[in-house]
Amino acid sequence: MYRTHTCGELRLADMAKAVTLAGWVQTIRKFGAITFVDLRDRYGITQLLFGEELTRQLDEQPLGREFVIQVTGKVNERSNKNPNLATGDVEIIVSDFSILNRSAVPPFTIQDDTDGGDDLRMKYRFLDLRRNAVKKNLELRYAVNRAARNYLHQQGFMDIETPFLIKSTPEGARDFVVPSRMNPGQFYALPQSPQTFKQLLMVSGYDRYYQIVKCFRDEDLRADRQPEFTQIDCEMAFVEQEDILEMFEGMIKSIFKEVKGIDYQEKLERMTWEDAMWTYGNDKPDIRFGMQLCNLKFPAHSFRTRKSISDLITGAGFQVFDGAETVIAISVPGGSEYSRKQTDEITEWVKRPQIGMKGMVYIKCNTDGSFKSSVDKFYPEERLKAIAAAAGAKPGDLVLILAGAEERTRKASSELRLEMATRLGLRKEDEFKLLWVIDFPLFEYAEDENRWVARHHPFTSPKPSDIETMISNDPEIKDAAKYLEHPYAQIKANAYDMVMNGNEIGGGSIRIHQRELQEKMFAALGMDAEEQQHKFGFLLGAFEYGAPPHGGIAYGFDRLCAILGGSEVIRDFIAFPKNNSGRDVMLDAPSSIDEKQLVELQIKLNLNK
Amino acid sequence: MYRTHTCGELRLADMAKAVTLAGWVQTIRKFGAITFVDLRDRYGITQLLFGEELTRQLDEQPLGREFVIQVTGKVNERSNKNPNLATGDVEIIVSDFSILNRSAVPPFTIQDDTDGGDDLRMKYRFLDLRRNAVKKNLELRYAVNRAARNYLHQQGFMDIETPFLIKSTPEGARDFVVPSRMNPGQFYALPQSPQTFKQLLMVSGYDRYYQIVKCFRDEDLRADRQPEFTQIDCEMAFVEQEDILEMFEGMIKSIFKEVKGIDYQEKLERMTWEDAMWTYGNDKPDIRFGMQLCNLKFPAHSFRTRKSISDLITGAGFQVFDGAETVIAISVPGGSEYSRKQTDEITEWVKRPQIGMKGMVYIKCNTDGSFKSSVDKFYPEERLKAIAAAAGAKPGDLVLILAGAEERTRKASSELRLEMATRLGLRKEDEFKLLWVIDFPLFEYAEDENRWVARHHPFTSPKPSDIETMISNDPEIKDAAKYLEHPYAQIKANAYDMVMNGNEIGGGSIRIHQRELQEKMFAALGMDAEEQQHKFGFLLGAFEYGAPPHGGIAYGFDRLCAILGGSEVIRDFIAFPKNNSGRDVMLDAPSSIDEKQLVELQIKLNLNK
Repeated sequence: MYRTHTCGELRLADMAKAVTLAGWVQTIRKFGAITFVDLRDRYGITQLLFGEELTRQLDEQPLGREFVIQVTGKVNERSNKNPNLATGDVEIIVSDFSILNRSAVPPFTIQDDTDGGDDLRMKYRFLDLRRNAVKKNLELRYAVNRAARNYLHQQGFMDIETPFLIKSTPEGARDFVVPSRMNPGQFYALPQSPQTFKQLLMVSGYDRYYQIVKCFRDEDLRADRQPEFTQIDCEMAFVEQEDILEMFEGMIKSIFKEVKGIDYQEKLERMTWEDAMWTYGNDKPDIRFGMQLCNLKFPAHSFRTRKSISDLITGAGFQVFDGAETVIAISVPGGSEYSRKQTDEITEWVKRPQIGMKGMVYIKCNTDGSFKSSVDKFYPEERLKAIAAAAGAKPGDLVLILAGAEERTRKASSELRLEMATRLGLRKEDEFKLLWVIDFPLFEYAEDENRWVARHHPFTSPKPSDIETMISNDPEIKDAAKYLEHPYAQIKANAYDMVMNGNEIGGGSIRIHQRELQEKMFAALGMDAEEQQHKFGFLLGAFEYGAPPHGGIAYGFDRLCAILGGSEVIRDFIAFPKNNSGRDVMLDAPSSIDEKQLVELQIKLNLNK
Repeated sequence: MYRTHTCGELRLADMAKAVTLAGWVQTIRKFGAITFVDLRDRYGITQLLFGEELTRQLDEQPLGREFVIQVTGKVNERSNKNPNLATGDVEIIVSDFSILNRSAVPPFTIQDDTDGGDDLRMKYRFLDLRRNAVKKNLELRYAVNRAARNYLHQQGFMDIETPFLIKSTPEGARDFVVPSRMNPGQFYALPQSPQTFKQLLMVSGYDRYYQIVKCFRDEDLRADRQPEFTQIDCEMAFVEQEDILEMFEGMIKSIFKEVKGIDYQEKLERMTWEDAMWTYGNDKPDIRFGMQLCNLKFPAHSFRTRKSISDLITGAGFQVFDGAETVIAISVPGGSEYSRKQTDEITEWVKRPQIGMKGMVYIKCNTDGSFKSSVDKFYPEERLKAIAAAAGAKPGDLVLILAGAEERTRKASSELRLEMATRLGLRKEDEFKLLWVIDFPLFEYAEDENRWVARHHPFTSPKPSDIETMISNDPEIKDAAKYLEHPYAQIKANAYDMVMNGNEIGGGSIRIHQRELQEKMFAALGMDAEEQQHKFGFLLGAFEYGAPPHGGIAYGFDRLCAILGGSEVIRDFIAFPKNNSGRDVMLDAPSSIDEKQLVELQIKLNLNK
């Protein structure tokens, strides 16, 4: 061993001990005839004192930043203590040192506030990883990993490894494929998730399974998507939705306790998908703050059970509201003092192409009880007051109102709500609010193909009460314009998402475990019997031999870690991430391969001209 | 939850409790008007008693093997207890039951001694996994996983995930490659191991890293090799060989304790590679038994420091020995009573093509002190006695002697030793003997290319005392016939293997951490500067920025589990293994993919005619 202690462990109690340390040179400060060096390793920083003689040696054999050195010496009390450092009370009076390895000048500083840009840091990721800011992210990641494993182990779950070289069954996202040399012309696929395998394990009787496992999706990468990502993947047999919600509420609380020291006592709120859409315009609402949507107007077929309050706004001759499918208001606390410039700026914000609204109406609820709005000429103060009351606005608040087509308006309202909360500082990264969103629709309508697609995935079961609806109806959509009237549009899934601070961190469902229902589901998604057999014959076959009722959940591990770390940038929580083109710029991968490899695989390139 | 208890937990203490169980029907035994059903789940088997009324219901709604049922009833004391079952004192008097799912008749019986052949069991692996024999293997695997993780965590190791989509740098085994759709004409490779990443992590300062991780090699599969396999992969910085040996001796002992309840006290023997080859003919000796090799004759250049005892056999006019490069004897305890038929059979065994010897000489050391041999006409009894003494034979033993070319004869002697031990029952699957093999040669000679190849891998450092030899000599082999005289043939690696019961379960090395030495190594393997830069530029670059001394080890997790489970068949310890053609017969993978996928990837098939 090159050291007796790490750079993070020596204290005053170690006074006068003879020690050997090894690590990286963080800083060198020469004071006249003596030299101070801060030596860094994974565990901390310890100050070294090189006396006159050694300082003369250093002149001949100079150290530089990031040199790896080994020093022997005695622990001494520092005259000038550093209270910001755990080791700040001591220094090592060096008696001997050797340079274990030199370092070129790093392309950026190895500090929390580095001068390195993103690209440079990714190319030299091995240096970036030395920075404390990145190290603590990876340490948090490992802590979450341990906490999840320990909880699941205590609950009787078994880690069972599922294969990585599987069969390509593209459904939803694209598979990465791997040509098989031993089976020319054939390909493996890398798993998008271990979904079918964990279901097979349930059929096999391993009634509590988990894995923290890499998954792969060949998607066009949006910002902060990775082609390979990690899931905490879990499945249970002989359970109903309630059992899963209880079990994984326990897991997340255990993670909070172990990793963040937070005793998250509250029972997780459960919100139906419809309530989430109605109240927050979003199926992963951030409930750290209020500012709920006020649905002034909405299409009846989307929210069948809700009572219309459109009287509040219609019949005033304001064509924007009268002609809109949906009108939604939110109340911004303390916003009545906003200047014209500020409300104009918010209006510009909602008109950005990403949000896509044509304009915005506001009502200022002045502290003196009066109202002032951008539509004063259509609405007398009485009506403004009624609208503001519906939106839950108090004196001093500002009501913002968007109007337009249902989907776009609802989404824009959700975005506006989040934006205003961010501006108001209501989205605190050290505050955590969890909830379950439940009762999702089982199907989504794919307009371009005029067919149903699975909202979650094709293995999700309908609510028990909807099974009959699913089996007894023909999935075909005869009239595209009236797809919402098809019975399938009303089928609810036995599915659930765990949402934290406006991010979906986990999602799952009770699965189909009956062959007939699974076939009906595949058929509803447009898969004929032959395709079903080719792609999922093994699963349909397994369901014939005593498949138990089962369900599970998968957490996006990278995102979970990022949010627990107070960030939404998952790349910062991955040791060796890829960039937005799916490249590892450090390795320079992907890259061309030898012709010999192509020949052996019996494939050739077929590049588009 | 579909149950209040599992099928493995009820005891007499639970008498009269109302319980609900769910599981699979293992057996159905009708006794007149009542029916006994054994209900099985992951945790055990519980006997169910269906009374007269329910038995009548069963007549209408019959159960079958592997049906999934849920029953409610009361715990009762069995009159006819089954001491072989943890739940054997009780039964459930069923008051209500429901069939959760039916099962077709399984293609083989779900029992320890199943009637299913290998192919059938692999096709229906989800049923095979229900068998207790397979389940206990996966449970053992999980226990080893937990024990390794817990030990490494306690020792301050961090699990850090390394990427799966990396760069193809074929060196040794073939890479599996993954075409990149976003970077047409380019490919990722799947990692053969996280070797370079874990070294980068050392450069980054994460001085204790581990991962239990899938690795991939596209090799022609010998029996019991898998294209994807799992490693316990570890690396440490600021260490020397001794530190690694200590640390991982601790890990394996911890695994023995946790998983097998075995307190493995002995310090692991350390044996040089040369001693292993000399004494056992093998670099992974099974030391559960003796029967060491007696080197009657050997080539001086292979074992420079050993004293020749060839006088014992030469000059007797026996051309087979006189003309052989190598003559090796082993003594089989109690073998003097073997019949002529038995010695003939052993001779036939060594003449099999897999062993490849031309014949075998034996000397019977009779219990009366006389000697009888197949070469009596060349060797008088005095000489036979001296040879037998050299081989360590006692009265009653049988000395077997092989002669021929060094490599083949040594290998055959090793095989013969293992075979005789197997026949004598000396290789007990519940006895475990571990050792470290150290001081391997750094290079091997590749005859077909007349160049050096790395015995371990190109990142392994030479022994510190051999670095000078490596740097100051030209790697070129000018005279192929005299390659053993090249200084590189004598360079020893800073490498070590952990061997258990004749299997290499782990191997590693202290790595090169200096750019110049790494370049010299690459050059010695025939890689020019351009190729070095293309394949490993990132690593060479990293070594310029303060790489610490480091080393590590990787365990073959599948094999480790198999041997701990008393088997050498790793397939039995993998949930979803592939067959010897790399196929998953359950999934029917690999398989052809859609033309659309090929077009998107801009590749096409180029099948050999």
